[in-house]
Amino acid sequence: MTDLASLEHDLEAAVESILLIDPHSHINPLSPTAKSLDDLLGYHYFTELAHSVGMSRDALGPEIPPKEVVRGVLRHMERFDNTVQYSWFLHIAREFLGFTRQRIGEADCDALWEAAERVFSRPDWEDEVLRRSNVERIFLTNDFDDPLVGFDTRRYVPCLRTDDLVFHLDKPTVGSRLAEATGIEVGDAYGLRRAIGKLFEHFVSHGAKACAISLPPRFAPMPVSPDALTAALRDPDQSAVRAMGTFWMLAEFCRDFRLPFDLMIGVNRGVYRQGVYQGQDLFDQRTSLILYADLFNGFPEVTFCVSILNSAQSQELVAYAWIFPNVVTSGHWWYANVPAYIETDLRARLQAVPKTKQVGYYSDAYKLEFILPKYAMYRRVLARCLARDFVIERGWSESEAVDLARLLLRDNARRIFHLD
Amino acid sequence: MTDLASLEHDLEAAVESILLIDPHSHINPLSPTAKSLDDLLGYHYFTELAHSVGMSRDALGPEIPPKEVVRGVLRHMERFDNTVQYSWFLHIAREFLGFTRQRIGEADCDALWEAAERVFSRPDWEDEVLRRSNVERIFLTNDFDDPLVGFDTRRYVPCLRTDDLVFHLDKPTVGSRLAEATGIEVGDAYGLRRAIGKLFEHFVSHGAKACAISLPPRFAPMPVSPDALTAALRDPDQSAVRAMGTFWMLAEFCRDFRLPFDLMIGVNRGVYRQGVYQGQDLFDQRTSLILYADLFNGFPEVTFCVSILNSAQSQELVAYAWIFPNVVTSGHWWYANVPAYIETDLRARLQAVPKTKQVGYYSDAYKLEFILPKYAMYRRVLARCLARDFVIERGWSESEAVDLARLLLRDNARRIFHLD
Amino acid sequence: MTDLASLEHDLEAAVESILLIDPHSHINPLSPTAKSLDDLLGYHYFTELAHSVGMSRDALGPEIPPKEVVRGVLRHMERFDNTVQYSWFLHIAREFLGFTRQRIGEADCDALWEAAERVFSRPDWEDEVLRRSNVERIFLTNDFDDPLVGFDTRRYVPCLRTDDLVFHLDKPTVGSRLAEATGIEVGDAYGLRRAIGKLFEHFVSHGAKACAISLPPRFAPMPVSPDALTAALRDPDQSAVRAMGTFWMLAEFCRDFRLPFDLMIGVNRGVYRQGVYQGQDLFDQRTSLILYADLFNGFPEVTFCVSILNSAQSQELVAYAWIFPNVVTSGHWWYANVPAYIETDLRARLQAVPKTKQVGYYSDAYKLEFILPKYAMYRRVLARCLARDFVIERGWSESEAVDLARLLLRDNARRIFHLD
Repeated sequence: MTDLASLEHDLEAAVESILLIDPHSHINPLSPTAKSLDDLLGYHYFTELAHSVGMSRDALGPEIPPKEVVRGVLRHMERFDNTVQYSWFLHIAREFLGFTRQRIGEADCDALWEAAERVFSRPDWEDEVLRRSNVERIFLTNDFDDPLVGFDTRRYVPCLRTDDLVFHLDKPTVGSRLAEATGIEVGDAYGLRRAIGKLFEHFVSHGAKACAISLPPRFAPMPVSPDALTAALRDPDQSAVRAMGTFWMLAEFCRDFRLPFDLMIGVNRGVYRQGVYQGQDLFDQRTSLILYADLFNGFPEVTFCVSILNSAQSQELVAYAWIFPNVVTSGHWWYANVPAYIETDLRARLQAVPKTKQVGYYSDAYKLEFILPKYAMYRRVLARCLARDFVIERGWSESEAVDLARLLLRDNARRIFHLD
Repeated sequence: MTDLASLEHDLEAAVESILLIDPHSHINPLSPTAKSLDDLLGYHYFTELAHSVGMSRDALGPEIPPKEVVRGVLRHMERFDNTVQYSWFLHIAREFLGFTRQRIGEADCDALWEAAERVFSRPDWEDEVLRRSNVERIFLTNDFDDPLVGFDTRRYVPCLRTDDLVFHLDKPTVGSRLAEATGIEVGDAYGLRRAIGKLFEHFVSHGAKACAISLPPRFAPMPVSPDALTAALRDPDQSAVRAMGTFWMLAEFCRDFRLPFDLMIGVNRGVYRQGVYQGQDLFDQRTSLILYADLFNGFPEVTFCVSILNSAQSQELVAYAWIFPNVVTSGHWWYANVPAYIETDLRARLQAVPKTKQVGYYSDAYKLEFILPKYAMYRRVLARCLARDFVIERGWSESEAVDLARLLLRDNARRIFHLD
Repeated sequence: MTDLASLEHDLEAAVESILLIDPHSHINPLSPTAKSLDDLLGYHYFTELAHSVGMSRDALGPEIPPKEVVRGVLRHMERFDNTVQYSWFLHIAREFLGFTRQRIGEADCDALWEAAERVFSRPDWEDEVLRRSNVERIFLTNDFDDPLVGFDTRRYVPCLRTDDLVFHLDKPTVGSRLAEATGIEVGDAYGLRRAIGKLFEHFVSHGAKACAISLPPRFAPMPVSPDALTAALRDPDQSAVRAMGTFWMLAEFCRDFRLPFDLMIGVNRGVYRQGVYQGQDLFDQRTSLILYADLFNGFPEVTFCVSILNSAQSQELVAYAWIFPNVVTSGHWWYANVPAYIETDLRARLQAVPKTKQVGYYSDAYKLEFILPKYAMYRRVLARCLARDFVIERGWSESEAVDLARLLLRDNARRIFHLD
């Protein structure tokens, strides 16, 4: 092993000891771990890749027995065993399911299925996964009408997800869910403000630490007058105005309730119309953070934790976080959550964005088991950047480099989301 | 040599032994090799660079004796001897022309010219170049009215190039060539369909394995009704509708004839109006694969082999190939065919696109001699990515890494283009 | 140290011996060096980062004593000590101020302040900085009404900066400054042409070697007729036409006076409205050099030295400089002046743009002291690229690699700007 490889290895080991805060996930706190192998391989990262290499949607359908779905995904997996997504599953199988080889295929289905049944049913499995993943707190993605009860909000931190409010308020189900959650039938901008105010009160009183939304590439937030918003609430054709007005109102509530606002920018929903569940969304690289200039200017008191889907705008995010006090870089999202993109994006952030303004990573996981392999991937890239650009290039000590990592993996999230 | 350098070297050597299929070139099968040095240095990569550093277009004109054109290019070459394009020529001179030094200049003109005369006139030169380049089959770029006779279509695989049909059908020469090739005077959408059907029959019956087109950055395919297409065929001002309708029709024929459709996305023609032949085209990075969503959705049975000119949308291509079963990444095209861009693009593809959905590389060559240096450049980058991201990072064996390379350089093309 | 590290180190040392020409700065030739620490830490790179991590604008205001401003910036500096901008200041402190540790904080304020007072007041400080920075000539950024007297124009090369003329001619102060400088009250296109002609005469007769401008991402130069320009000069609402017409006229004068035209493309001014002085500008990645096609075609005699703010269009710049004889790559500007971006951009330029068409770097400095750390950063990246992509990959000798560096750092600027 060369000196550099050895240095990277040492840094990676040191960074592994940092107790994580995972500031964005889709964990269900009432069922946080996988119950069967199907809960892992049903993750869209695997179903969409299996479908992409030839598995029909029918073979993934709800009427197929879960074990057969798993068998089908495993059968197709050999065709995408080069991907980093595959390596996450391999990591889980080796770390949690006692798998010892380097390649997984259809022949492993029964053994893995049974290992999963056995392991996942252990009474202390949730605690064990968290302990072995070295994670202390995990942010959730809660529907606005989530009762937020039945779980420890210090371990699972509520986060108000607002896509439905901004983009689907015209759907009857959303309107009635909002009415049920707040007791308010929204008929105009003032009613909407009262209703959203109730949601914020509910969330904050139940330990919520962030508001979050995913946004399409062309979204351009602007303030909307109450009259214009009222008109848009009553006119199904004014979806753009309704979305802008509701979004701006959410930013006002973030300001009033001191909640950071997670902006996940760049996703177009349903692009591949016949895709598998959650495997239909793509992006358009023709987007810019300049669209958010009025928002960032308008809410200096709100911290915006910005994730981007499109690495081509990575330099924009670096520059906006460098200049705007209230803009923070946040993680490596979805299609950008690939080592080649993480490395490029991370190097630039570490070189040009203040270290206190970077939320390094989040798992985006649906089940706790995915936190470990995803963070492992990130830490490896992080260790490489720290070794090359800081210890070697800048003469930092290893412990100084680990201190920087601790900000990214833990301390910035604690401070920015007011976790104590 | 470090362990890493040695590993990369071993992998490169192993990858060199893979018998290539070159899925895109501009080879003329009736005159596949260079006849003189002018056939090499007249390649636009050299004339445009010589012009860029000061050689006048007149000195490249058809009235100048070929050897003097060569002398002029060589005289200017010292000014771009840093470029990878120069290194291709140096590679050819050393490999095929007995050149032994590291730098080529005007003083080498006579010796190289004579060596070329001698070597290129060998009766077995074509076979020798192919053997030394380790290439089995080479796809062509055939005009729609190419008779496709006089050559071995198993060695030189026909490919129907359709730019003229989509973008220049209003030009009298194109219309009359189409009439001559098909016996049909196109007057409406139905006539166009019959004519294009005849072209597909002709091409497929002569061994064509793909349809191909290059497209401008703003092109956005959409279906066009027969009436609208008929109107556009009759109205010179409706070039956009004519192009969309003809393009969509081609996709329908690709579906019906089971031909993959090579999309080469992003070129604006004639941007530098006083540029040399084939040295006038550039791009506009403001483009997106979202423009192709309807096409990819509309033709699930057609495999689209997508090349992009603009590396800024490289992540888009990765994401679209990851999600859409019928989208395949294809090569590294033109301005993106530079090691710095290849490395970035290739790393991400290898990490996130299923290995069966990547056509690794094509030469784009006009003469067989260019296959060797271009593939050598690619294999070197490929070996580096395999060494770092797979053997070292993921613990793959060298032979597993070479198996992955074989898919990219040979087996995927065989399967996708139905070569057997 | 590995062989590669040793090679990089040797190359860096060799490249350091090249006497620099710095083709773009904001140096005031009548006060070229810092007079106090405030002149260094008042640089927008530091004030904007300090503000970004929490320092209020008030604490940076003109009524605050300079030493207290410095103390405040130093107090906040620990929060951005990961950035390369911080490393520039550390480099200055160690190189010029006798600082010996690796980290700078508030506690160092008094000692650094006093060291600066002592060092910066040396009578030969200007010469010493230039000598230790190994720089021979430095281009200025002169207002159009700069008298250009009182300094050695061979050391400090005048450059006509034209943003005011193109974008602010409607402001009364600009109009009256122009009238005062030229004796012409501009009332129409012909008057503007006479006035600008006088400016060019004045500048060229005083040793100016370039014309320069910074441009917003959406700017699209086009010729404007005299009548249309006259109308636009009289109508405050026609700022776009006025800008295009004036800009085109400047290009005509560049042609007539044989001045290269520095285009610094991509900045939106005043995006962060409450930002500190010079810390308010950002960019929009949705831009393209295709917007300049008419300009590049229209002025084949003018060399355009193109800087881009947006690295996502880096490949465009490579391609346009590869094809257009009159397009030259120029430096690494502002938000792209970060090692991670420099390395990506530089590798591609070195591999695909003729070596004679690259102006490698400029300091953009406001005070001479910044030339040293900025060029040191660039040379380090350059040495790495030369080592890997040329000496190792292409078999170049070290001295050949240094010759390439000399073009980028000195000889191309001498030739392109007609410095002898």
